[in-house]
Amino acid sequence: MSPWKAARLGDRLDQIDTPALILDLDAFERNMKRLQDALDGTDVRLRPHAKSHKCPDIALRQIQNGAVGICCQKVSEAAVFVDAGVKDILITNQVVGDKKVAHALDLCERARIGVLVDHADQVSAFANASAKRQISIDVYVEIDVGMGRCGTTSLDQALALARQIDEAPYLRFMGLQCYHGSAQHYRLPQERKEAIAAVCKNAAAAKAAIENAGIPVERITGAGTGSVMLERDSKVFNEVQAGSYIFMDRDYATNQRDALDLPFEHALFVKTAILSHPTQGRAVVDAGLKASSVDSGMPVVWQNKEVSYLKASDEHGVLALTAESTLKLGDYVMLVPGHCDPTVNLYDEIICVRGNAVEAIWPIAARGALL
Amino acid sequence: MSPWKAARLGDRLDQIDTPALILDLDAFERNMKRLQDALDGTDVRLRPHAKSHKCPDIALRQIQNGAVGICCQKVSEAAVFVDAGVKDILITNQVVGDKKVAHALDLCERARIGVLVDHADQVSAFANASAKRQISIDVYVEIDVGMGRCGTTSLDQALALARQIDEAPYLRFMGLQCYHGSAQHYRLPQERKEAIAAVCKNAAAAKAAIENAGIPVERITGAGTGSVMLERDSKVFNEVQAGSYIFMDRDYATNQRDALDLPFEHALFVKTAILSHPTQGRAVVDAGLKASSVDSGMPVVWQNKEVSYLKASDEHGVLALTAESTLKLGDYVMLVPGHCDPTVNLYDEIICVRGNAVEAIWPIAARGALL
Repeated sequence: MSPWKAARLGDRLDQIDTPALILDLDAFERNMKRLQDALDGTDVRLRPHAKSHKCPDIALRQIQNGAVGICCQKVSEAAVFVDAGVKDILITNQVVGDKKVAHALDLCERARIGVLVDHADQVSAFANASAKRQISIDVYVEIDVGMGRCGTTSLDQALALARQIDEAPYLRFMGLQCYHGSAQHYRLPQERKEAIAAVCKNAAAAKAAIENAGIPVERITGAGTGSVMLERDSKVFNEVQAGSYIFMDRDYATNQRDALDLPFEHALFVKTAILSHPTQGRAVVDAGLKASSVDSGMPVVWQNKEVSYLKASDEHGVLALTAESTLKLGDYVMLVPGHCDPTVNLYDEIICVRGNAVEAIWPIAARGALL
Repeated sequence: MSPWKAARLGDRLDQIDTPALILDLDAFERNMKRLQDALDGTDVRLRPHAKSHKCPDIALRQIQNGAVGICCQKVSEAAVFVDAGVKDILITNQVVGDKKVAHALDLCERARIGVLVDHADQVSAFANASAKRQISIDVYVEIDVGMGRCGTTSLDQALALARQIDEAPYLRFMGLQCYHGSAQHYRLPQERKEAIAAVCKNAAAAKAAIENAGIPVERITGAGTGSVMLERDSKVFNEVQAGSYIFMDRDYATNQRDALDLPFEHALFVKTAILSHPTQGRAVVDAGLKASSVDSGMPVVWQNKEVSYLKASDEHGVLALTAESTLKLGDYVMLVPGHCDPTVNLYDEIICVRGNAVEAIWPIAARGALL
């Protein structure tokens, strides 16, 4: 990492060195409140996904604001949040291998931890290790609700896993993980509605099959920023896992909204400066693909119609400028990243700005926690 | 970062936790020697690019093996290597802004440092700051040799900058940066030959114009892994900056080689394990786009024809398996990353394996050094 910092507390925005990851605190707080307010008073609780921010300062604020806990994707990521004081984490992933199982059980001594399964061998591994150590852990069956990634593909499989968990003395069968990641990015509201309706049908059928066998299904959990209001109103889900809603990236903003969708604002930016301006129509900034992930497309320049971000190489971004552009060498622009999760994962700190001043600098403590 | 490590010294490959970044030391050393041997005895020296590895242990080995120093892209990246004892670094980038200029001059007190310019204001900034502090720095004019990114676009501009540098008491005009990044990835040898021939023509013309004005051009530097033998034989270049040659990624391997090109081997891998195997034809591994950058396309599975890597989400990779596949839950495969530079930048350590055992673990000390 860099031997020096991009900013100090109290710096003005124009004083922050580049490239740097910037959080607009006002917009972030409004986003956080918007989703929590939309869930308060319903039977649906919020367990926001921390893979988007990897930042304990943000997780603790989400929990203080009403979230029941957080989701993580990796055991080592969860460990960072347990170290920071988070007491309830669902690892929304299959945890495979003796080392990973042991680490997950270690965390159960300090927090309530859940994991997903979609195969009998995963249940056996946790059943054996938890019994040997006499440590309890929450287990959820992941069902494939249309994404074609992980998850059981038949009611029989889901029921068999629920039974296997239910019979293991130290495993608590909690419910079903029903996440459709691709549906979050379907551009038209009607497409998202149809996809989530199918998700709910699937989830309800699995719940019925398991409950008919005498095993209570306490929790149906899933959803993301693109569809969260549909799951809220589904009468099937009672927990949602949105993560990106606090930041909003360029990709999510491309979704066409309907009246139901909450007006989340862009709160996450990459500040970048012009290091080269070879022609009137072209400038080059110091944020390339190591500063703003391009897996979901290029970042866009925020509130400046004179300029667009054309392409990224490792450490350079090429801007196209209109003839009217007055941007010059050393000037900065703010980028809205194409995809917030992998962009945050490129930085060690997030610089929190209120108005024009740096109010806080939060470590992205779980950055690179891949295990 | 993860609170625990993926491997310990002496671990077997199958014991390394996943996902993990693996270096095959034998292949790495052969690659390092291959390029150095091809340059030894010529007038062309090697200044490998450290943006590919960000790892002082690798830089020091490259220098011990004959490299004159290294290239970096960022001042803060260079600082990490100066701290590790590297004495000669060319920052192949424009360095803009008072803070960055000051940091670059700080490094000149401990190492020989060079920077690029393509605008008079960059020269003025370094001329003023270096004179005030009485510290000398090497300055190169970057000329646009066909890439359309940074660099001067006319002989007059290049000459004017060389004059301006030459007249500044503490700036040493060293020569020309002539890098054509896109040409490295032209798939056909003939396309690369034509592009580099044009690069050389451009470079030679700029050199002649500047030397005709009485200013010696000591160094013509540039080139990358895809074209390095062309620059070696050009009689124009006397320094090359290849970086990826030590690792070789999937993208570079897609280049069609001709007899001249050196047979660099894949030495960099991501070890990843199967966490879900929902159908006979589909498995899911624990390396997604936060473990192997997809900006240049998906990784490929190494030496296993039963399986291909279809798509990546943040923490998942979906594999397509043939009907013959015997892979099961918990098994691992090795991935060749699509693009090595941003993949390395996702990890804190590179696990060095010889044969089947972990021989060393090297910190990727300049990971995330963006400033």
